[in-house]
Amino acid sequence: MSQAPSDIDDLIDLMARLPGLGPRSARRAVLRLIQKRGKLMQPLAQAMQGVADTARECLQCGNIGSDDLCKICASEKRANGEICVVEDVADLWAMERAGVFGGRYHVLGGTLSALDAIGPEDLRIPALVRRVTEEGINEVILALNATVDGQTTAHYIADELAERCAVTSLAQGVPIGGELDYLDDGTITAALKARKGF
Amino acid sequence: MSQAPSDIDDLIDLMARLPGLGPRSARRAVLRLIQKRGKLMQPLAQAMQGVADTARECLQCGNIGSDDLCKICASEKRANGEICVVEDVADLWAMERAGVFGGRYHVLGGTLSALDAIGPEDLRIPALVRRVTEEGINEVILALNATVDGQTTAHYIADELAERCAVTSLAQGVPIGGELDYLDDGTITAALKARKGF
Ligand SMILES: [Zn+2]
Ligand SMILES: [Zn+2]
Repeated sequence: MSQAPSDIDDLIDLMARLPGLGPRSARRAVLRLIQKRGKLMQPLAQAMQGVADTARECLQCGNIGSDDLCKICASEKRANGEICVVEDVADLWAMERAGVFGGRYHVLGGTLSALDAIGPEDLRIPALVRRVTEEGINEVILALNATVDGQTTAHYIADELAERCAVTSLAQGVPIGGELDYLDDGTITAALKARKGF
Repeated sequence: MSQAPSDIDDLIDLMARLPGLGPRSARRAVLRLIQKRGKLMQPLAQAMQGVADTARECLQCGNIGSDDLCKICASEKRANGEICVVEDVADLWAMERAGVFGGRYHVLGGTLSALDAIGPEDLRIPALVRRVTEEGINEVILALNATVDGQTTAHYIADELAERCAVTSLAQGVPIGGELDYLDDGTITAALKARKGF
């Protein structure tokens, strides 16, 4: 409840559901938007509608794009025999910002978790195994967060792929308990270059 | 740059301009939106467009509404001879959440500031003086933030209105340097009840 008109209240409630925004910051954000109706709110509403209409998950890797295949999967240049496995799209974007990896990706959509009852079938692990065979992959690079669940997932995937291809993981530079999306490009680059066999 | 498709990048750039969101949290927010296209992104885009189309400032008090006069100014019940002066609409909402003030408001749109060269004409101070006469106001309650600029503004307004009506200010409970929108309802209620003559 903001005591605002009901349509503004509805907008505040929706904004408050975004990560990083609570009720108070949602109110502040909506007021800023209303103050900048022409220059910010109108373009933002349109951009959001546009992305809502077109964005979808890449059928091959799980990246976000506007076609069945994302730009990376659609590019022949990226077919270098390497797949980098990440937990979510934010991590894929972090890798791409570093600009040091030339292959394609595979977005798991999470990690294995006994606590949350998330098994291999709930992630894109079976699809990863298929891709390794079908695309003739030589090396799978595990770029998972240095958390317990991330590392459990890495071990599971390494076991699954052991007979099929080389499996490496980001090594140097990823701090214990750290999350990829918080790292600077240089750290990611160093970690990729120093990757080690699993 | 998120390495996302360009329309998603544009959306992230716009989101990052909201208060409380930086580039990283904007990326996270947009990913969440894309994951919840149907249940969150679509409704949010529409709610935003709707508010962008209809929201406007009340011609009388500066509150946000969807008509020339906001609901409070349009309600005869709120014509009790009292005007509560606030710096911005978020503060008005905070007062309304407390539910203890029965009169109307006047939103200044900021505070006097020598540093930022904001004078009385840049705020709604002349309009406030007119309203006091035209609406037969008995008491103006200054609910300004307990900051230096807020208190400077309060003193200026108190001087301007000295011959025209009683001027009081929120007293007990507003912490030094504190901002109204951070206070709980009880504190605001106590401060209003213990208001003192200027
Ligand atoms: Zn893809
Ligand atoms: Zn009004």
